[in-house]
Amino acid sequence: MNTSVWQHHHILDLDDFTPEEIELVFHLADTMKKVMSHQIERLSTLRNKTVMNLFYEPSTRTRVSFEIAAKNLGANVVNITASASSVTKGESLIDTLTTLEALGADIIVMRHSQPGAPYIATKYVKANILNGGDGWHAHPTQGLLDLYTMREHKGKVKGLKVVIVGDILHSRVARSNIWGLTTMGAKVTLCGPPTLMPIGLDKPNHHFPPVSIEYNIERALDGADVVMALRLQLERQQSGLLPTIHEYARLYQVNEQRLAKAKPDALVMHPGPINEGVEISPSAAHGPQSVILEQVTNGVAVRMALLYLLGGGKEL
Amino acid sequence: MNTSVWQHHHILDLDDFTPEEIELVFHLADTMKKVMSHQIERLSTLRNKTVMNLFYEPSTRTRVSFEIAAKNLGANVVNITASASSVTKGESLIDTLTTLEALGADIIVMRHSQPGAPYIATKYVKANILNGGDGWHAHPTQGLLDLYTMREHKGKVKGLKVVIVGDILHSRVARSNIWGLTTMGAKVTLCGPPTLMPIGLDKPNHHFPPVSIEYNIERALDGADVVMALRLQLERQQSGLLPTIHEYARLYQVNEQRLAKAKPDALVMHPGPINEGVEISPSAAHGPQSVILEQVTNGVAVRMALLYLLGGGKEL
Amino acid sequence: MNTSVWQHHHILDLDDFTPEEIELVFHLADTMKKVMSHQIERLSTLRNKTVMNLFYEPSTRTRVSFEIAAKNLGANVVNITASASSVTKGESLIDTLTTLEALGADIIVMRHSQPGAPYIATKYVKANILNGGDGWHAHPTQGLLDLYTMREHKGKVKGLKVVIVGDILHSRVARSNIWGLTTMGAKVTLCGPPTLMPIGLDKPNHHFPPVSIEYNIERALDGADVVMALRLQLERQQSGLLPTIHEYARLYQVNEQRLAKAKPDALVMHPGPINEGVEISPSAAHGPQSVILEQVTNGVAVRMALLYLLGGGKEL
Repeated sequence: MNTSVWQHHHILDLDDFTPEEIELVFHLADTMKKVMSHQIERLSTLRNKTVMNLFYEPSTRTRVSFEIAAKNLGANVVNITASASSVTKGESLIDTLTTLEALGADIIVMRHSQPGAPYIATKYVKANILNGGDGWHAHPTQGLLDLYTMREHKGKVKGLKVVIVGDILHSRVARSNIWGLTTMGAKVTLCGPPTLMPIGLDKPNHHFPPVSIEYNIERALDGADVVMALRLQLERQQSGLLPTIHEYARLYQVNEQRLAKAKPDALVMHPGPINEGVEISPSAAHGPQSVILEQVTNGVAVRMALLYLLGGGKEL
Repeated sequence: MNTSVWQHHHILDLDDFTPEEIELVFHLADTMKKVMSHQIERLSTLRNKTVMNLFYEPSTRTRVSFEIAAKNLGANVVNITASASSVTKGESLIDTLTTLEALGADIIVMRHSQPGAPYIATKYVKANILNGGDGWHAHPTQGLLDLYTMREHKGKVKGLKVVIVGDILHSRVARSNIWGLTTMGAKVTLCGPPTLMPIGLDKPNHHFPPVSIEYNIERALDGADVVMALRLQLERQQSGLLPTIHEYARLYQVNEQRLAKAKPDALVMHPGPINEGVEISPSAAHGPQSVILEQVTNGVAVRMALLYLLGGGKEL
Repeated sequence: MNTSVWQHHHILDLDDFTPEEIELVFHLADTMKKVMSHQIERLSTLRNKTVMNLFYEPSTRTRVSFEIAAKNLGANVVNITASASSVTKGESLIDTLTTLEALGADIIVMRHSQPGAPYIATKYVKANILNGGDGWHAHPTQGLLDLYTMREHKGKVKGLKVVIVGDILHSRVARSNIWGLTTMGAKVTLCGPPTLMPIGLDKPNHHFPPVSIEYNIERALDGADVVMALRLQLERQQSGLLPTIHEYARLYQVNEQRLAKAKPDALVMHPGPINEGVEISPSAAHGPQSVILEQVTNGVAVRMALLYLLGGGKEL
């Protein structure tokens, strides 16, 4: 597949990805999965390149996923956790980024609590910036791995009914999925408590693609091809956005009974880590429709594909 | 030496090791020491394999020992410290383990405060589980490196009188040594305050191999080939199991005067890190009979041997 | 260039470096910069060697700089942060160092808050000790990277007027620069508040090379070739050595107006991380005379050169 459709120097969100770019990522991720399962030889595309993981928020699974992906392609990998380092001691984000570039970073994977932080980063460094999550805003690699998992099981993303259930308001996972899914022709339904739903999302809006909103979970799941539960941050209760965790689970938990409303072969997805018994029941999380662990594996494959493209890899 | 005697997919404790398996580990560790001292070429047995160190308790020396051992065999190594990561935030051990496997872990080295945790792990993942210490229960790589160090100096383990001194009750090091030593035909004497000694250990017991217990350290050390002091957790005093640290040292410290009761060429061992002046005197810890630093080096060699076997390495 | 002038097994400070050794480091760093920019092939001088970074004080930039430098030469690198590890739990520095050596450390990079700690280390281990900063005492790799940066821009160090501004009293950066600069024939002027200036530095003193002291920053900067601002530890105010941070900035901040006193092409340097608006103004830190980011890049090159020499690398 021709890599010339690839136009990104940075990966910030999926709102500027073309369908052809997303198809290219899918195609490369197929190859990367074969590398991961030792069916084909490892690639050394990133040999002599240095990937730095700059995480201002702790995250084991995302950090390890990027670390493994980069090492699988032969890169030197350096992990920098802001809380464990001097980067928090009064040094600005910009000074940290320009320092990492001066130290030799070719690609900077960045997670930051501030929406837009990676966009600012691109104005100050020439290194490739790969957004590993910025506040509520975007998590493009999660969006791509979710789409890739759907396409793996359903053959294509176009035409699927995808229902995202939970705290949409604070979810960068939901936002990046919405962009990717609508770009690829899926129909997105959002479901969650009104207090956790962004206002005006279902009105025509040039800032955001069209989605459906449905506050009743049984109606939302009706005929769904994919049901994605989001992690509920348990702190939301303290901030008054939720009555109780129990009440939330009663109204919005993805469980077997509710899954019966979806198509019989609907996929159950979750970005992890799960709060079992809160946003998803144990039987739904670990049942035959769950592809949650496949999402984790596909995350490595998709990140390998993206690092491969940022590192200048050519057709495979 | 024929690796077909090796029967383990996981390494959880030494209670199910055969003498032939232990001899195989010794034989391979001999080769690994030559690799470490650059006498023979590095092996790349674990190239394309990923070893994850999942530590729920902090430990520099054990974590670094496994890290070096895995890197010496060409593996990708990822360190995950539970306290510094999101794995503690409500995610279950099982979810963490299945996630690490989905991320690509071939071998998971695991340290956990809960006895039995690595046994549970084996029920949920296909990756090799290597117990790096589970609560008071077992520390099989420490047991093997201790045996290997004795065999290096004494030619064989069979027939040696090994005296383990200290807090036996809370010691996974003591338990794994007891299994390994009795399997190889050594005679084990345990010595320590009655409050820090498990009850009934000297009675015939199908759960545990036969050992001698002697509360008086001078009598215990009489004719010993090996004297192993255990680290005293200084917290034991707060919990009322010890009168004072000073009193403990007066009664149970391994020092030169007491060592005179042992054979003249008796080895002085300690799993480290030592509390100098508490369970061992400075002159005993650093004297001519001490092999404490050799234990550290042998730990890398033994762990290389075990990783080599788990990774499917064949005879050398 | 002939590496036989190199006489160091350890790198502790610049007080015992000859001009020929410093020139050799410059020469090798030139080559290392070409490796870093992919102009020439990577070297694998440290393949099969293990470099351990033992940091008792947190430091992202210095730790990452050494990590990248060592990996660029093919070494295995292990990071040990004392605060995140068991090394702080009652284990002595000596026991930690001998343990790291027993684990296989060939080179130990060490940062410690106690002046002289790396000197003690050399008495107990055969591994090469590379001082990454010891209290107020020395930071030889910072000194060398600073000299290298001056030589890169000015052709040579000899004859330059270098002004170091700030908290000289607590600065290992200043001390190592003074040794290196005077060895290479530069003239050093120190400038800062009297409470932050060591006593007697401007008197003839066989413990320290001759420097000038000037408390007035405008007079100090007059005709300078290089202006180096030091990081002000903001805690100094609490300890009564400074009236206020604002007062410090008013009297000693390196800014554009004051830079006008120096030569028009004077370099602006800072060891980082900077307190923008305190010891240096934003426009000076990021202006056309600033070489602060080049210092970071040169730090990797100089550390590669030093690791190359410690690892037994020959002429290039």
